Amino acid sequence: MSKQKVALVVEYNGAAYKGWQAQKYDVATVQESLEHALTKIANHPVNVICAGRTDAGVHASAQVVHFETDAVRPERAWTLGVNTHLPSDISVVAAKNVGEDFHARFSAVSRRYRYVIYQSEFRPAILAKQVTWTYKNLDVERMQRACEYFKGTHDFTSFRAVGCQAKSPVRTILNFSVDRFGQYIVLDVRANAFLHHMIRNFAGVLMTIGAGEQPVEWAKTVLDAKDRTQGGITAPPFGLYFVDAEYPSELEAPTVALGPHFLPYKQEAEYVLPS
Amino acid sequence: MSKQKVALVVEYNGAAYKGWQAQKYDVATVQESLEHALTKIANHPVNVICAGRTDAGVHASAQVVHFETDAVRPERAWTLGVNTHLPSDISVVAAKNVGEDFHARFSAVSRRYRYVIYQSEFRPAILAKQVTWTYKNLDVERMQRACEYFKGTHDFTSFRAVGCQAKSPVRTILNFSVDRFGQYIVLDVRANAFLHHMIRNFAGVLMTIGAGEQPVEWAKTVLDAKDRTQGGITAPPFGLYFVDAEYPSELEAPTVALGPHFLPYKQEAEYVLPS
Repeated sequence: MSKQKVALVVEYNGAAYKGWQAQKYDVATVQESLEHALTKIANHPVNVICAGRTDAGVHASAQVVHFETDAVRPERAWTLGVNTHLPSDISVVAAKNVGEDFHARFSAVSRRYRYVIYQSEFRPAILAKQVTWTYKNLDVERMQRACEYFKGTHDFTSFRAVGCQAKSPVRTILNFSVDRFGQYIVLDVRANAFLHHMIRNFAGVLMTIGAGEQPVEWAKTVLDAKDRTQGGITAPPFGLYFVDAEYPSELEAPTVALGPHFLPYKQEAEYVLPS
Repeated sequence: MSKQKVALVVEYNGAAYKGWQAQKYDVATVQESLEHALTKIANHPVNVICAGRTDAGVHASAQVVHFETDAVRPERAWTLGVNTHLPSDISVVAAKNVGEDFHARFSAVSRRYRYVIYQSEFRPAILAKQVTWTYKNLDVERMQRACEYFKGTHDFTSFRAVGCQAKSPVRTILNFSVDRFGQYIVLDVRANAFLHHMIRNFAGVLMTIGAGEQPVEWAKTVLDAKDRTQGGITAPPFGLYFVDAEYPSELEAPTVALGPHFLPYKQEAEYVLPS
């Protein structure tokens, strides 16, 4: 019997996890929780591959994964059924049988993240580990001008963690916007792929510029330096959400509204594929 | 030396707590965490009195408390200083010296709660314990018409928990609204005071009516029955937020924007005092 490939969209609050990826040591990861639940429904060991691995404390409104199975199940078994075996902070929100040529990681032509900042005199207790708090007044217009320097194809060595495993520091930023909703400031970034800590390093530089501690042009200075030590602080993981992976339409990947759902904000994920 | 009365506004995520009130047994409560932190700053034991005790799993964007102290401290000590001794899911968001005649519980002329429902085919992982999930399509217009029956002064026996300690089941509902924001439906209720489980019982009836499982007039049938067994289910605690206590203006109580802060929603708490 030939195997069926299934793609899932997974939402998770990463606050309690040591990141996405299963590890040798006995620590909680999203991947292990998901594989454990899928194995219960499939009645055989299941391994998943994801569109973009997230770090400890990072969330997803729409992580995409695929796996192969011999089990013949209705699609609802891979959502409602799997969810009964998952903890409350992980949920499958879409499932679809896909063709053999679908690969959650290698078929993705872009990934999209949102970084949510909460600006307030005092630290928030509600959403404490789901936003990044700042007491500083941030000028969104300055942040928007600064992020323009990042758009396009660049060597992002200055925004790459020291331990980053990627072969090349060159990435292409397809969209970058900064918007305010009341006390929330949201960075929304889409790229072909990301380097390790890249968005949190963008957030560190943009928050510094937004607070008026560096000029707008400092974003370009840091980018041009191609030196991580020039890049300032890495912002915390708690504000970061993986919100979309984009696939060629002929692969018919499952899709959901853009999240996280508490943001009343551009929920349509319509893209023009990068040329 | 005479004692100073201090009023605080406290935000908390109640998911990890057995409610507000300190208990004999060794369980985590918001009151105990707050008193512990205040005691550190005051250098003497501090007891707080709150505007409205919340149950296990219930949240607050603006619980109001007062306490008395011999310690002479700037107001920032009671916010920033206390917050350094509080866990991440509790935060003091305003502090103010108040007069002797201020009492967080007895001076309050109304309390206000919001109940946040998240409607989605699959359960949410983000905000899992901060909203009440339903997969049912709810008709907000029907819910709004049903809640009209609750406005004014009534015997709310049908909406009162069996163990409720209040002497009288009569309460006055000053405002009641039902609004939708995307996938969120928010009940917003202001009353002179509430009975135990009253809002969760309102939510249970309104969700049933919103789902079309009972007619709009069932809200009146339940109210008129003066019988808890006629009232249907008690909705879960996770969607419930204490959002305001209202005091006569001459008491100059501290105030904050209406929350919870992730709702892009009527953040001004301007009331006409009930006559």
